[in-house]
Amino acid sequence: MKEKIIETSIELFDRKGFKETSVQEIVEAMGVTKGAFYYYFKSKEELLRDICLTYIEDLLQQQERILRDENKDCTTKLYEIVYMLIHNIRTRRKSARIFFREMRHLHEEHLQEIKAKRRAFRENYQKLIEEGIAEGEFKQTHTPHMVTFGILGITNWSYYWFNPDGEISEEKLAEIYVDLILNGIKNREGK
Amino acid sequence: MKEKIIETSIELFDRKGFKETSVQEIVEAMGVTKGAFYYYFKSKEELLRDICLTYIEDLLQQQERILRDENKDCTTKLYEIVYMLIHNIRTRRKSARIFFREMRHLHEEHLQEIKAKRRAFRENYQKLIEEGIAEGEFKQTHTPHMVTFGILGITNWSYYWFNPDGEISEEKLAEIYVDLILNGIKNREGK
Repeated sequence: MKEKIIETSIELFDRKGFKETSVQEIVEAMGVTKGAFYYYFKSKEELLRDICLTYIEDLLQQQERILRDENKDCTTKLYEIVYMLIHNIRTRRKSARIFFREMRHLHEEHLQEIKAKRRAFRENYQKLIEEGIAEGEFKQTHTPHMVTFGILGITNWSYYWFNPDGEISEEKLAEIYVDLILNGIKNREGK
Repeated sequence: MKEKIIETSIELFDRKGFKETSVQEIVEAMGVTKGAFYYYFKSKEELLRDICLTYIEDLLQQQERILRDENKDCTTKLYEIVYMLIHNIRTRRKSARIFFREMRHLHEEHLQEIKAKRRAFRENYQKLIEEGIAEGEFKQTHTPHMVTFGILGITNWSYYWFNPDGEISEEKLAEIYVDLILNGIKNREGK
């Protein structure tokens, strides 16, 4: 039941917005009573916190699994994180959009909790870039944090437009983006 | 008066959300009557359309000014568009966030109008990439549209985190991002 409440709410929050969706509408869409809702969640805000927390913790876990593997170089790990983020669009797009758009409606302590995890994800990413620099895979930069934000922007933005069932597959998009991140678009062959 | 209504609404829509802000709140914040509001706008939705339209038309104009200059190569134009987008954060961040977040509340015909202009901006960007390829400045790709989305993601995302008054200047960030877009992060010197 809890899972079903979360699923239904993600649909409604994504389509109508968090503020515009009432608990009444959620339970009506499910054909249950408000009592069922309040058995699992103290409030609509707590449900939003649950959605945001699940979204970011799941990403963090997937990222940490990739980063832990000592047999892979940083370039491979970079590809795997880019692919993971693109691959998640299929199942997590709505959660992601709610995460980015509705997070501001969380109570302060919940907001800080979520932001700390979002920061951890970014810092892990930055550590990978710095490790790649130390290993000689990536070039030196004085602004690894800015580069990290840029790299994050490429995949985060894809949640707004990428169609996983379109002409370009998830694998292909990940390849295109890792090539962009590693090599850029400059032509290095003689003109 | 019209400008003041728009300014006040941008503040309120950004902070509270479009749906959560009533016309009553807008006019109260300005100390005027509802009559003043309805003299300039038929509805709150029309005001939102005005904000979104002004935002995207202004970007399009700036972009077209850059692209028209025949004395500049594609790499220079790329830098100028990246810089323009970052430079606009100072004055347009709130409009941008309203544009991306609240656009879905527009009536269908207004939504289509806005989306056509957003598409024109992206297509101009893509044409620049394709021209750069034809000129030998950028390397060949079969997916210039995907590369364009990636490049757009880098700067669009910066509207969510970049502080123009922080340690990194707008010029510096534009340089970092153009370097990322042109050269990537791979180390090309011998390990």
